[in-house]
Amino acid sequence: MSEKTVKYGASANSYVEPADNPRSRRIKHVSDLFSRKIRREMKRFLAEGPQCVREAVKYCPGDILDIYYDARLAETSETIGEIIATAKRKNIYVHPATGRVIKAMSTDCQGIIAVVSFSALKNAAKVSISRDSLVAACWEIRDPGNAGTVVRTADATGCAAVVFVGNCVDFTSAKVVRSTAGSLFHLPVFRLSEEEFFDWIGENDIKVFAADVYGTAKNRPKMLTEIVSQPDLTDSACAALFGNEARGLPEETIDKCDMTLTVPIYGSAESLNVAVSSAITLYQLATVKHENGRAAKRHEKT
Amino acid sequence: MSEKTVKYGASANSYVEPADNPRSRRIKHVSDLFSRKIRREMKRFLAEGPQCVREAVKYCPGDILDIYYDARLAETSETIGEIIATAKRKNIYVHPATGRVIKAMSTDCQGIIAVVSFSALKNAAKVSISRDSLVAACWEIRDPGNAGTVVRTADATGCAAVVFVGNCVDFTSAKVVRSTAGSLFHLPVFRLSEEEFFDWIGENDIKVFAADVYGTAKNRPKMLTEIVSQPDLTDSACAALFGNEARGLPEETIDKCDMTLTVPIYGSAESLNVAVSSAITLYQLATVKHENGRAAKRHEKT
Repeated sequence: MSEKTVKYGASANSYVEPADNPRSRRIKHVSDLFSRKIRREMKRFLAEGPQCVREAVKYCPGDILDIYYDARLAETSETIGEIIATAKRKNIYVHPATGRVIKAMSTDCQGIIAVVSFSALKNAAKVSISRDSLVAACWEIRDPGNAGTVVRTADATGCAAVVFVGNCVDFTSAKVVRSTAGSLFHLPVFRLSEEEFFDWIGENDIKVFAADVYGTAKNRPKMLTEIVSQPDLTDSACAALFGNEARGLPEETIDKCDMTLTVPIYGSAESLNVAVSSAITLYQLATVKHENGRAAKRHEKT
Repeated sequence: MSEKTVKYGASANSYVEPADNPRSRRIKHVSDLFSRKIRREMKRFLAEGPQCVREAVKYCPGDILDIYYDARLAETSETIGEIIATAKRKNIYVHPATGRVIKAMSTDCQGIIAVVSFSALKNAAKVSISRDSLVAACWEIRDPGNAGTVVRTADATGCAAVVFVGNCVDFTSAKVVRSTAGSLFHLPVFRLSEEEFFDWIGENDIKVFAADVYGTAKNRPKMLTEIVSQPDLTDSACAALFGNEARGLPEETIDKCDMTLTVPIYGSAESLNVAVSSAITLYQLATVKHENGRAAKRHEKT
């Protein structure tokens, strides 16, 4: 074996000739997972790019079926090299391939892609809710980038779960997964019908805040900046429910919520992007919960 | 003229046969504006979609050179119908066209597109900065969606201006303009080199906060949640400087700033999307400025 070929694999022992046929059956089995129908049939989905694959390897190695990577890129990219080394230690199947094979699988994976089983996803039954918990919920969110960004922000704000309510974009689509930047593997993310969502909320004694500019006659919006002192926020678990990009939340859904919250607009913009308004809302709620949590702990100590 | 044809125009008097040749020179002159080079040569850019065109008609009617719209869609869309009626009252040139002509101009314009002169854009000299002002600044931001979302959020938080510092994405690109949802026409948005930016900051006595997770040895990051009581925030105008999506801010740039701010991460996410972190930062700064402004006004009254 020449020195040049040895460099392809992580070690000489594990050397495998990189796959080099973009029309092979195996590659089709990967790229087929861009179809929602096939994901549901096969109960598996794709994690594209170093950040997502790294987090999957870290948080759910047992649920990764295969990792494909650009063998030549792995020689120069420290990030990809480290992911592959860790994956091998965890006995995950890793497959070197040529750049054109990887491109045939996915144009957006930056040299590395994982096939992940649906078993990596936790459902509602796996979520433990306490008085301190915060939950992010999206009603009929349609844009993959927005959906993924909400998951990433929910993770950063320490949410206990993200719930996709009703007819949302499929969160196992490659674009949503990529937009979560790996956060999909950090916290439970699941789908519920609207009825199931409000049942789950009731069972877990969670207060729900509808994020909406207009609210309803019965449930008028309160400014987010004014709720800092609301006891509702610290006495029980809270969920924020965000609406569809174009239509917001329907009145009957808002009326099922405990309160309507709106982000103050100081300038001339008419509204905010849903990824932005959800981030501002979740951070405000998380800050209140955290600061109050700290204050309570200080109180207990004295 | 038959009743059917009359319906195309806003009134029988102003009836014009809709343009129906997707290969005409005029249409090429519009779609050419997707090229940065041609935008600079012609000193004009595109505003796509009802929301952007409506805001341009409202805020800078004198700077709109032409509006093209899907004549058939204008019959059923109240939004487009109203924009066209307002534009006509303001003596803007409006041109009905067939759906295929509009699609040849832009696939993302939802039936209406405006050609706008660079004169609609205000430069640094046009910005008036007071002690209460907040400024959003982006250093080498590259993603059009992120850049546009920052402009929209800056507008919503009542910023006095948005500055694109250094080698940023061209904010006159159609995708950036569309992501601003019309906010580009609400507040001054301009480019400066890094040197020009810090000169402008100095001349206007603005405190600059670098938004960065790591900071530098000299300028360590403070948590955003801890700065509420900073006198810096209310004693002078403030700017928040956000870094590149992948690389953040360089150390030497951070060291030119007055303080480094970071958004607290409560969960397992490694970082936040730049559109999200800028939104959280701008809202926190705006809230402090507004709440203090109100408190100061209450104080003056007593």
